[in-house]
Amino acid sequence: MKRSPRTVISVDLAKNPRSQQVLHNRWHPDLLPVASVQPGEVFRVECVDWTGGQIGNNDSAEDVLNLDLSQCHYLSGPVHVEGAEPGDYLEVEILEIQPLQGHEWGYTGIFDVKNGGGFLFDYFPKAGKAVWDFEGIYASSRHIPGVRFPGLIHPGILGTAPSQELLNKWNHREAELVAKDPNRVPALAYLPDDKGSFLGALENQPGVARRKAAEAARTIPPREHGGNCDIKNLSRGSRVWLPVYVPGAKLSVGDLHFSQGDGEISFCGAIEMAGAITFKTKLIKNGMSLHGNLRNPIFMPGPVEPRFSRYITFEGISVDEQGVQHHLDATVSFKQAVLNCIDYFKRFGYTGEQIYLLLSCCPCEGRVNAIVDSPNACCSISIPTEIFDFDVTPQDGGHLVKVTTNCPISDVQKQ
Amino acid sequence: MKRSPRTVISVDLAKNPRSQQVLHNRWHPDLLPVASVQPGEVFRVECVDWTGGQIGNNDSAEDVLNLDLSQCHYLSGPVHVEGAEPGDYLEVEILEIQPLQGHEWGYTGIFDVKNGGGFLFDYFPKAGKAVWDFEGIYASSRHIPGVRFPGLIHPGILGTAPSQELLNKWNHREAELVAKDPNRVPALAYLPDDKGSFLGALENQPGVARRKAAEAARTIPPREHGGNCDIKNLSRGSRVWLPVYVPGAKLSVGDLHFSQGDGEISFCGAIEMAGAITFKTKLIKNGMSLHGNLRNPIFMPGPVEPRFSRYITFEGISVDEQGVQHHLDATVSFKQAVLNCIDYFKRFGYTGEQIYLLLSCCPCEGRVNAIVDSPNACCSISIPTEIFDFDVTPQDGGHLVKVTTNCPISDVQKQ
Amino acid sequence: MKRSPRTVISVDLAKNPRSQQVLHNRWHPDLLPVASVQPGEVFRVECVDWTGGQIGNNDSAEDVLNLDLSQCHYLSGPVHVEGAEPGDYLEVEILEIQPLQGHEWGYTGIFDVKNGGGFLFDYFPKAGKAVWDFEGIYASSRHIPGVRFPGLIHPGILGTAPSQELLNKWNHREAELVAKDPNRVPALAYLPDDKGSFLGALENQPGVARRKAAEAARTIPPREHGGNCDIKNLSRGSRVWLPVYVPGAKLSVGDLHFSQGDGEISFCGAIEMAGAITFKTKLIKNGMSLHGNLRNPIFMPGPVEPRFSRYITFEGISVDEQGVQHHLDATVSFKQAVLNCIDYFKRFGYTGEQIYLLLSCCPCEGRVNAIVDSPNACCSISIPTEIFDFDVTPQDGGHLVKVTTNCPISDVQKQ
Amino acid sequence: MKRSPRTVISVDLAKNPRSQQVLHNRWHPDLLPVASVQPGEVFRVECVDWTGGQIGNNDSAEDVLNLDLSQCHYLSGPVHVEGAEPGDYLEVEILEIQPLQGHEWGYTGIFDVKNGGGFLFDYFPKAGKAVWDFEGIYASSRHIPGVRFPGLIHPGILGTAPSQELLNKWNHREAELVAKDPNRVPALAYLPDDKGSFLGALENQPGVARRKAAEAARTIPPREHGGNCDIKNLSRGSRVWLPVYVPGAKLSVGDLHFSQGDGEISFCGAIEMAGAITFKTKLIKNGMSLHGNLRNPIFMPGPVEPRFSRYITFEGISVDEQGVQHHLDATVSFKQAVLNCIDYFKRFGYTGEQIYLLLSCCPCEGRVNAIVDSPNACCSISIPTEIFDFDVTPQDGGHLVKVTTNCPISDVQKQ
Repeated sequence: MKRSPRTVISVDLAKNPRSQQVLHNRWHPDLLPVASVQPGEVFRVECVDWTGGQIGNNDSAEDVLNLDLSQCHYLSGPVHVEGAEPGDYLEVEILEIQPLQGHEWGYTGIFDVKNGGGFLFDYFPKAGKAVWDFEGIYASSRHIPGVRFPGLIHPGILGTAPSQELLNKWNHREAELVAKDPNRVPALAYLPDDKGSFLGALENQPGVARRKAAEAARTIPPREHGGNCDIKNLSRGSRVWLPVYVPGAKLSVGDLHFSQGDGEISFCGAIEMAGAITFKTKLIKNGMSLHGNLRNPIFMPGPVEPRFSRYITFEGISVDEQGVQHHLDATVSFKQAVLNCIDYFKRFGYTGEQIYLLLSCCPCEGRVNAIVDSPNACCSISIPTEIFDFDVTPQDGGHLVKVTTNCPISDVQKQ
Repeated sequence: MKRSPRTVISVDLAKNPRSQQVLHNRWHPDLLPVASVQPGEVFRVECVDWTGGQIGNNDSAEDVLNLDLSQCHYLSGPVHVEGAEPGDYLEVEILEIQPLQGHEWGYTGIFDVKNGGGFLFDYFPKAGKAVWDFEGIYASSRHIPGVRFPGLIHPGILGTAPSQELLNKWNHREAELVAKDPNRVPALAYLPDDKGSFLGALENQPGVARRKAAEAARTIPPREHGGNCDIKNLSRGSRVWLPVYVPGAKLSVGDLHFSQGDGEISFCGAIEMAGAITFKTKLIKNGMSLHGNLRNPIFMPGPVEPRFSRYITFEGISVDEQGVQHHLDATVSFKQAVLNCIDYFKRFGYTGEQIYLLLSCCPCEGRVNAIVDSPNACCSISIPTEIFDFDVTPQDGGHLVKVTTNCPISDVQKQ
Repeated sequence: MKRSPRTVISVDLAKNPRSQQVLHNRWHPDLLPVASVQPGEVFRVECVDWTGGQIGNNDSAEDVLNLDLSQCHYLSGPVHVEGAEPGDYLEVEILEIQPLQGHEWGYTGIFDVKNGGGFLFDYFPKAGKAVWDFEGIYASSRHIPGVRFPGLIHPGILGTAPSQELLNKWNHREAELVAKDPNRVPALAYLPDDKGSFLGALENQPGVARRKAAEAARTIPPREHGGNCDIKNLSRGSRVWLPVYVPGAKLSVGDLHFSQGDGEISFCGAIEMAGAITFKTKLIKNGMSLHGNLRNPIFMPGPVEPRFSRYITFEGISVDEQGVQHHLDATVSFKQAVLNCIDYFKRFGYTGEQIYLLLSCCPCEGRVNAIVDSPNACCSISIPTEIFDFDVTPQDGGHLVKVTTNCPISDVQKQ
Repeated sequence: MKRSPRTVISVDLAKNPRSQQVLHNRWHPDLLPVASVQPGEVFRVECVDWTGGQIGNNDSAEDVLNLDLSQCHYLSGPVHVEGAEPGDYLEVEILEIQPLQGHEWGYTGIFDVKNGGGFLFDYFPKAGKAVWDFEGIYASSRHIPGVRFPGLIHPGILGTAPSQELLNKWNHREAELVAKDPNRVPALAYLPDDKGSFLGALENQPGVARRKAAEAARTIPPREHGGNCDIKNLSRGSRVWLPVYVPGAKLSVGDLHFSQGDGEISFCGAIEMAGAITFKTKLIKNGMSLHGNLRNPIFMPGPVEPRFSRYITFEGISVDEQGVQHHLDATVSFKQAVLNCIDYFKRFGYTGEQIYLLLSCCPCEGRVNAIVDSPNACCSISIPTEIFDFDVTPQDGGHLVKVTTNCPISDVQKQ
């Protein structure tokens, strides 16, 4: 007889995350496992939201303005997988993800340019927010009227612990990047910083914890081990093959998203939530060398993604807003596609901030359509038209204004 | 009683494209229309392949090596749409696309680095080729065994004529780019060049034609008017809203693809073919200003795309192959995803060239998954597993070599 | 601020269902509401499995053999919807359905021919059973190896209370049918029967309860009010329009299925489970007359059904197994399709019982393909090939036996 | 080098079908092959419409009223497949289907009750017609405004020749059925009848042809060999496994449909057209016994079916329009679902005839949802809402009349 999934990590949303040693907010090989599982075992992990409760279900963006990024992301783990050894692939199957019962809501934020910013920080420098209510599979927001969509629920962060060698490599290459423009706002990268760090059970040994925190990697970017991939299609039924760098793999997870758009453009762009995720693992011994020694994880999306039949697509090319021609620059092209889309949807009465938030979190697709047609890369963003409760296709006579309310925007900026 | 679609442009594949004045290979406001249609009329346009017949159905890559890029792309048109005026949107519905009967084949090429190159010209500098046979909706190749897939047939190029003002803007900005590194191989952009140019019916006035050709835009990049977007989802049943810049719109089409992968990475990367396309147009008067004065076309994909249920996805981050950290660079990230994918598929016995060609033309999806997680953008490429006739998922013990033949590669390089 | 969904009905799986007055197992206009909701309110209802706990997670079919059908189905409700009046449509949106945490399993049964039987009772007269374990979205069974599939989770039963007039009509027409062959095994229909009945809060008034039970409708068939429709596509995100016959609508729900095949052929054919369902309702005043006075509910399936890309399809025509030609009889045709399918899958080593159970509960599609080609209706059953972990398409040399274990079958028959 | 598909059967729509010996309209083992193909060869077959040109592109239903059913269906073939022997499976891959260029239109008909009738002959006894124009992948009709849909193009008839033994069996069992009610209108089955028969090349031997015609099977029903299955999903990319009963298999095809709904309820219910179909075959030696000796063909649908994301679904149960309760009768249930649907759509101004025709030919799905819930089978019909250009979901206040024109109906009845 099979037993029900064992909950190997529980969290308490009413408590300070820093009092819960099943959490941590840095990557380091020496983090202490807080649970242990067998390959093949089905297990359940609870997660706080990525900020550890800093954002409220209210109508103000002040909490986003003042959020302490140095504390993010609070992850659940690490989980020791028995038998995992460096060089293996850890196959992780994501069997289910849900909000925690009683906490059926989430939020999307625009970060202030001086506090992380986002893809369009030059256009939207102030903090903003939208709160989303979950009605079963659906999300809707009092701050962005006229839309409702089914969640493509997934973890923003899923990763194994790096080896010391890999950690050193990360720190080296990222420091070199920052050195090119150390005072840039937003920063070019987030280097190790003990401030705000929390290393879970290691915190019982404060001296050790501080020493490790000084070199532990921040959780903002995705890297070789997985990490903050923010891949929206890593949803129910997906399988991921993560490289194993330390004995036991030390799997951590967090930053659960009820939904996200490709690009996650406003940075805190998904619908962020607390929740629970159910996993099953399998080891592929020596999987890394057997499969080409790739530099990043592999995955297969699951079979129950929401499907839409009609999308409206906006293109962008490698000519920036000032008319300057770049060479096959997908980042510039994708930015133009997003800007085109925002301009388009303003015709319905939405503000730029609302669409910026919406594109961050609705199930839109960001594509690299062509990367070879010198000098213009063609990128695009596609929005399912069915998420709107009115017709958004181009039409004779244009469109009437339908939307007359805005989302909360902070009226000051961060010092 | 409705009549059958009228074929407004016919081509003869047995003839030199330069003898067929329904073709042209440059963009210019003064090109002479070769047909005229009413909005609402269903009409059919025949197209030669983009090279005008320079590539053969054979087992050698010498024709790709020696291809004269200055002649590309041969487009059909322009078609005058009655009533179209600058500022309108021309809604173009793509009703059907097919290979020409008796010519049920196509090709994918890797261009020599000295003749255009491709996204991975540094890895694959030599010319290569795969020929594809069409069996109804399916394509398969004697040069890339083990795969077969349904075509997502579409035009690589669809565009209206630029105004003189817009043309001037293109020429200015692209010249500025080239000026940054005029001797780069491959070139940063392709500037106007009378060599190889062919302006259709204008060629009857050689003096005029030469003068216009000296400023006419090359067809390689996508631009504000559409052009070489190479968007694989612009298939049967799609609608595109193209800006109108000149009276009559002057719609041109060509570069038909039986299939293409997102990115079209090997440059001549789609399955290139001759064929016929059926259109219906509609005018949205003053559509540009009514819809936000976007800088690029909008489109909606059609309802009969091939659908797959399982994909294998490879990620890349903004750390290049030399380990250098870049800042949120989607081009670098997408390149890493592609390189990971190529390494992976080598385990089955494929050569790098074969997978480079395959990713260029099979229905794979290239995504911008996250563009905000400093310093790493996360991009990915996803391949439908069902196009292979063997299991390609990661597995215990790795994979056996299945493929033992290669595609043609040129054994010399272009001087 | 929106509140979390209110759980308006809770059940206790450890208790006898007959001790829980939020349950009932007959349809009657005078049942007492156990909860009340406002239109627009999101609410959650817990349900026991349809038998109220008569079937165990074990390896014997004796509990199916001895199941007391007179007690089925235990439904949760009725729920009073404020403002609902006869003639309205009650729009019910199914927002979420899940197994109860700690009870992640279900079962599929073949009923003994003397205890209800099933579509193929003449072939499979003995009781049988398969137990399914849920791993998040997936189900697999130790009794039917080689298959695993994502659930298309839905309620088998969802309905409003009939008016007294409608109830009388049901009882009259069903009694007329039974009168045609009163001793048939299985019975032609299940008429009102006080034995086993349980009328929820009405049981506090035993005399009244017994009097109502004598005329209350059994829950086996679907009828005008919804009821046991067993429509597998009534899953997450669906909307149903139910006619309202009594003030407050008196909505009841139960018989939750983790998955079901079209036809639910083995009768207890879905994967039966206990679980919770989340609803939102809306009233369409006078909706029945406004929408054509239909005799049955309308519904729209939701956006997150599992999707498959390949099916294997078996046809049947209106010639029965004895070779007798019937006239456009879809029931005969569908039976032949099912029999063809069972014969086909035996080639892999499955027993007939295993495939009978599998077709009952896996996401297979049963179609009426053609109903006019005299004398043969063409019906079909289509199985997604991806649910099997081996290739099931026809092939040269046929198939090897892969499956060597059977499911539990009762070795006696019911007296 | 692969050659283009060979056209092995050509037809001339301007000629009388009876003058074209590549056609035939009866099934018989002794028909003479008109073409021969190798397994693995890609070949193309042209087909006339099923009536051989009896129906015109006009606004009158008189041609449907007077259609000579004894001549139907004109099929192309038989094609001899080299090496095929009785007992083999002939795998037929449908690679492409298209209307013939210059003939981009089709029709749907309601047959007069005295001339074949249809599923609802008791409600719609008069002849009716809708003509459909094809615009590439789309069909629309001046006779049924407000709808447009992509075709799911397929052959209504695809089959091998029966053996003499199988033919005898058919004739025997169908004669037994007719004998039960020989004078029924419409007839219970269509028995062999020399009148109207056309046996292709056998007609060169008039005596032989008349003798064979006297026993040759009519083409109306599907049978063990395939035949008139009218399965709408047998579209591009499908594979069918047909039993082989005679040396060379003798494959015939015809009755091409641009689109059809499940059930094809109005009998001439698909969008009937002339066209061309491209095949590839493969032999599975002894496939019949290797795969369970099924009594009907197997097939797998292809990957490019039009996909829709929203359907509106109408149910029916086994209670007929007079209120009589039947026992698990799927035919009765499906009829009720269809009648509910017709009543519903009348609210938009459509006539019953228009919806009867539309359900016959649009991509609607007919399901056997539950066949075990005594006494009611639950069947349903689901219409993609996206085929309408207005909102068809139930709503407050009901619906406005949008449609004010009708389709042609014959004002007399057949004598």
